Amino acid sequence: MLEHPSIQALLEKQKKQHHVASVLSLLGWDEQVNLPPKSSDQRGQQMATLSEVHHQFGSDPSISGLLKALEADWSQLNDQEQAIVKNSRKEFDRATRLPTDYVTEKAILDSEAYHAWVNARENDDFAAFAPFLKRQLEMAKRGAEFMGRGGDPYDYQIDLFDPGMTAQTIEGLFTTLKEELVPLSREILSSPVQAKNEQLKAFSVDKQEAFLKEVTAKLGFDYDRGRIDVAVHPFCSGNACDTRMTTRFHEDVPLDSLFSSIHETGHGLYEQGLPRDQLHNALGQAVGMGIHESQSRLWENQVSRSREFWQYFEPKYREAFPEQLSSLSSDDLYLAVNAVTLCPIRVDSDEVTYNLHIILRFELEKMLFSGELEVDELPDTWNRLSQEIIGLTPTSNKAGVLQDVHWSGGMFGYFPSYCLGNMIAAQLWYTLLEEMPDLLSDFARGDFSRLLGWLRDRIHQHGKRYETQDLVKRVTGDKINPKHLIQYLKDRYKPLYQ
Amino acid sequence: MLEHPSIQALLEKQKKQHHVASVLSLLGWDEQVNLPPKSSDQRGQQMATLSEVHHQFGSDPSISGLLKALEADWSQLNDQEQAIVKNSRKEFDRATRLPTDYVTEKAILDSEAYHAWVNARENDDFAAFAPFLKRQLEMAKRGAEFMGRGGDPYDYQIDLFDPGMTAQTIEGLFTTLKEELVPLSREILSSPVQAKNEQLKAFSVDKQEAFLKEVTAKLGFDYDRGRIDVAVHPFCSGNACDTRMTTRFHEDVPLDSLFSSIHETGHGLYEQGLPRDQLHNALGQAVGMGIHESQSRLWENQVSRSREFWQYFEPKYREAFPEQLSSLSSDDLYLAVNAVTLCPIRVDSDEVTYNLHIILRFELEKMLFSGELEVDELPDTWNRLSQEIIGLTPTSNKAGVLQDVHWSGGMFGYFPSYCLGNMIAAQLWYTLLEEMPDLLSDFARGDFSRLLGWLRDRIHQHGKRYETQDLVKRVTGDKINPKHLIQYLKDRYKPLYQ
Repeated sequence: MLEHPSIQALLEKQKKQHHVASVLSLLGWDEQVNLPPKSSDQRGQQMATLSEVHHQFGSDPSISGLLKALEADWSQLNDQEQAIVKNSRKEFDRATRLPTDYVTEKAILDSEAYHAWVNARENDDFAAFAPFLKRQLEMAKRGAEFMGRGGDPYDYQIDLFDPGMTAQTIEGLFTTLKEELVPLSREILSSPVQAKNEQLKAFSVDKQEAFLKEVTAKLGFDYDRGRIDVAVHPFCSGNACDTRMTTRFHEDVPLDSLFSSIHETGHGLYEQGLPRDQLHNALGQAVGMGIHESQSRLWENQVSRSREFWQYFEPKYREAFPEQLSSLSSDDLYLAVNAVTLCPIRVDSDEVTYNLHIILRFELEKMLFSGELEVDELPDTWNRLSQEIIGLTPTSNKAGVLQDVHWSGGMFGYFPSYCLGNMIAAQLWYTLLEEMPDLLSDFARGDFSRLLGWLRDRIHQHGKRYETQDLVKRVTGDKINPKHLIQYLKDRYKPLYQ
Repeated sequence: MLEHPSIQALLEKQKKQHHVASVLSLLGWDEQVNLPPKSSDQRGQQMATLSEVHHQFGSDPSISGLLKALEADWSQLNDQEQAIVKNSRKEFDRATRLPTDYVTEKAILDSEAYHAWVNARENDDFAAFAPFLKRQLEMAKRGAEFMGRGGDPYDYQIDLFDPGMTAQTIEGLFTTLKEELVPLSREILSSPVQAKNEQLKAFSVDKQEAFLKEVTAKLGFDYDRGRIDVAVHPFCSGNACDTRMTTRFHEDVPLDSLFSSIHETGHGLYEQGLPRDQLHNALGQAVGMGIHESQSRLWENQVSRSREFWQYFEPKYREAFPEQLSSLSSDDLYLAVNAVTLCPIRVDSDEVTYNLHIILRFELEKMLFSGELEVDELPDTWNRLSQEIIGLTPTSNKAGVLQDVHWSGGMFGYFPSYCLGNMIAAQLWYTLLEEMPDLLSDFARGDFSRLLGWLRDRIHQHGKRYETQDLVKRVTGDKINPKHLIQYLKDRYKPLYQ
């Protein structure tokens, strides 16, 4: 399969680097899940040193010779080898063009800015966070410059998360989406139909945990190669050998931990479906965040908010929480699962208004990078655009501009992936229904294997062989098109709310 | 404080190596506490790569020049600088004198021999393990030779765990101890007084955990810089910035998890008392295993098996477990805490007979290294000496010579530290009582701060500045003397069992 003599030597080099990367990922997980409150200084130093080691492995001068030899024989490489070489070139350039000083400074800043953000959010004090955000913005621009991407630093950021994607492409997609989605969301929100989520009370954490483990195992998550723990924010980290998810629990908001867990399970199933023996190279790694998010969203929304999913799980849910669910009919429960409400917080939002939160962030990031907007003006502009796009003004920065962790880590260009993921999920969904019109009846029997098998076959097994747009086109016959998401939201929500 | 110009350069080198070492320690903790069952292959690879990185940092050729410059100015160095240089020299020689071939062979043997031991113990088949033990013995002798310690390879092993200690010194100590302890243990075991530990049943794990956290926090463990989790074997890892302890729970053996936790808390308090800003060098690191064990044993035995400790905690324990403790009087409970029973397994033994298990292992190791005893004769000699020293013959090799993991990893010379720790703990205890005759009354009030302050001042703050014997002499006025342990065991157990 991999035949070129320089490929094996290249892979050998990448293996050790990947071991260090996977340890860095574990240190990040441990920081969120286990780290004692006063132990963060040492964690920052450990991560800085390992980042340096990771950088040294990745910038090993002998890689340059191997890549040149492989690139010289480009036409003789098969498509798997080409994918490996293309991705290695990208990583090698990233590793060698960014100076060690920069990498170390960034690692330390990431840790400091994270803690500054935690405090700023707690105290609703944007001014305390602003200097860190300015430095991160500066670092992002310097990074793009080192990579020879000085002209379009925001595109460089976007490409980090979604290979091949640009701000211009996203802007086109988001403009169409916004035109349709703003009126649709207003229409749903003004409906007299109201979900009764406030009646969901006193769901004991132990039983919530047992139920969500049952659900996620049924969906296909392999707990022999992964786990789920509690953290402030739900996330999924690790790789196919050891996938670490997190969730959070509130006794009176039981659907949050359940759907967060299902969402992370979508990510986890993607990771666990990547070829385990190719983890260290492009063939065993995820395409990017857009595709990753399409997997989490498909399982969370198209699958687990469907009537058929609840046909199977509702009796089990009622068995676990008989009293808590006694006042809700099946229709009430189904409506609660698909509740749409106006909410200032992105991560607490439903799948309709969620996309508006992303469009808001994309517009702000674009302006921050173009210089049209200063960091100090961010809170006011956030509030103004929030009113325009989402339809509300947050009552505090804590519930507005300070709500998300991403910017503290300099992760600009990441937010759009969430909405790209929603679009791709809907697009995959209609392809799935075309190929298997009776797919939903599987869910009613608690059988998710046909769906998982299809995703494994069409998406997971290919690793990074195709860039985002190419993969979507290969699987669905078309590049990303927002019409599928609009269609899906209308199909699901119009009957419910009218 | 640290003034020599080469010292700062040396410390800078050691810092990054220590970051890697602390991450390796965390990976080991995570392996025992969190790792999913099928994720161990990747963990092995991560640890192999990081061990290589750690070795590269430690054998950096520029360290040699720094050490030579510092050693040339030896008389101008203050005692802290001397401690740093002395320890760095030891570590650098260890990192550079062992040939790569030897290190690789040893790493492979460690892994093979571990699995061979697991199987041999399971099948009670010493012959299957013997070839690996022979090779480990051979490797230990070769290792000592590489280090220029060919004449006394067992001393080299002992010095790995207790700097400055020798087999001859230990033999002197253990001979005296054995003379007194064998008759004392027989006397206690033949007493008609019997503890009623079998009456302790159905202690819920949640409440056990809450109680042991209350106890260990009261002793002084800082949960803002540490945690305790569940693992198969109790241990303490990490360092002063982030101390990770483990324990295990059995509903019907509640004193096991409680005293294991207190034992590990003793280790944890030592780690947390080491200077946090010197972690990366000798001034912030533990002297060795003997001193470490003296800390865990002092808190576990002298402190937490005392009447005064239970005067304070008994009401709280009864409050947590009112029914479970209802059939035991205060005296019954106190006797249960100080139960002495004949047991073939070292780790399940009480503080009286435990030392006999160590003496047995030391005598066997000494004969193995001198050539007086062949590996094939080990089971018979184990059983014979076990009868002589402990007073029982194990019914199988599984419960005898195959019970401990240490030899499979070539960790000869480690066992004596456990008993040295017991001796040092008792010696510290009588010094404490001389200086603060009313110390025990603190415990009755739930106040352990005076004790902890004294240990911080006399032991913890010094890091590795003094070798084991020098530190003991500095604090107690005498080198290690077994008479204190004998005295302590008589003081505590004679009144109880007569």
